[in-house]
Amino acid sequence: MTGEAEVKARIEDREDLLRRIEAIGGGFVREGAQEDLYFRHPCRDLKGRDEALRLRREGKNYTLTFKGRRVGKGAKIREELEVRVDDFEGMVALLERLGFEEVFVIKKRRREFTVDMATVALDSVDGLGEFVEIEVMITAGEGEGGEAKRIEAFKNKLFSIADRLGIPRERLTTESYLELLASKSSSSKALR
Amino acid sequence: MTGEAEVKARIEDREDLLRRIEAIGGGFVREGAQEDLYFRHPCRDLKGRDEALRLRREGKNYTLTFKGRRVGKGAKIREELEVRVDDFEGMVALLERLGFEEVFVIKKRRREFTVDMATVALDSVDGLGEFVEIEVMITAGEGEGGEAKRIEAFKNKLFSIADRLGIPRERLTTESYLELLASKSSSSKALR
Repeated sequence: MTGEAEVKARIEDREDLLRRIEAIGGGFVREGAQEDLYFRHPCRDLKGRDEALRLRREGKNYTLTFKGRRVGKGAKIREELEVRVDDFEGMVALLERLGFEEVFVIKKRRREFTVDMATVALDSVDGLGEFVEIEVMITAGEGEGGEAKRIEAFKNKLFSIADRLGIPRERLTTESYLELLASKSSSSKALR
Repeated sequence: MTGEAEVKARIEDREDLLRRIEAIGGGFVREGAQEDLYFRHPCRDLKGRDEALRLRREGKNYTLTFKGRRVGKGAKIREELEVRVDDFEGMVALLERLGFEEVFVIKKRRREFTVDMATVALDSVDGLGEFVEIEVMITAGEGEGGEAKRIEAFKNKLFSIADRLGIPRERLTTESYLELLASKSSSSKALR
């Protein structure tokens, strides 16, 4: 499997976290706005299968991503297949012609750092607030003990970085922004 | 609608046609191998709807194209939506995860010329033989008399170029290579 292992946490004090990232040697990578469109499949219950299809716009870069179902516990570990496309609106139109339907948009501003081959991102998510995401790419390959052990190693790396950033284990979540936003909008509906 | 209007014809004498293209001022554009993968949709009968999803590899260029159903008669006129992608194998894998299935491959060598804003392509198609395709892009826009009249004008342009290349009207076909190959393989099955 190639994909990603990821944890995220809501943050209260962005400036404090920025200082901690710097203190553990985090290198600034980039900052920018991301707009993520999520699509409903014409005949598959992607949500029920814990899969997702996302088209991301980040400046002039557009990426189409399939996310597989989450495996394991403690961290969000899933297959990710990504291709870059040259035309955002064209890709939306093409997906629509194939019966896909845009169902959700997530807008955020991301500031990205690299720490020990992991990506640490500070996200300001419209309608949700401030988060930190710690992510490692899972690349294909053989490790001692096979895939399960290899994935365990990726997970431990995430936890170790979270520890060094002073984020308690119990504040880490494996929920996606999509889920957080969806549960927020359903609870606000429930309050009406 | 943005898309293409196209006619093709089987050719007997490639050298003669090359001379005719030159004689009417055709400018050489490029020559290269194209590999076209066609996909079955997970829940839509694309063939029945006269639609198609194609992923083309041409050197290091990869294009994903949705083709809408053919409209009108005499020329193949259809909507085309195209995006370039940066990873051929990645796009195949992504489509497969979404339930699309590769059903047909067409390989050809194309030599392309431009004649009066139209594209004239000499194709050597694996398993089919030599063809010429004359194609104009249909761009969005308002013309006198609306879409129907505008499309009629594109069609007449194709016919006029075919005339100038000495290709009789009755030899022009609107069938796709996909159809020609499919009907060839079904007729060879019938012969068994």
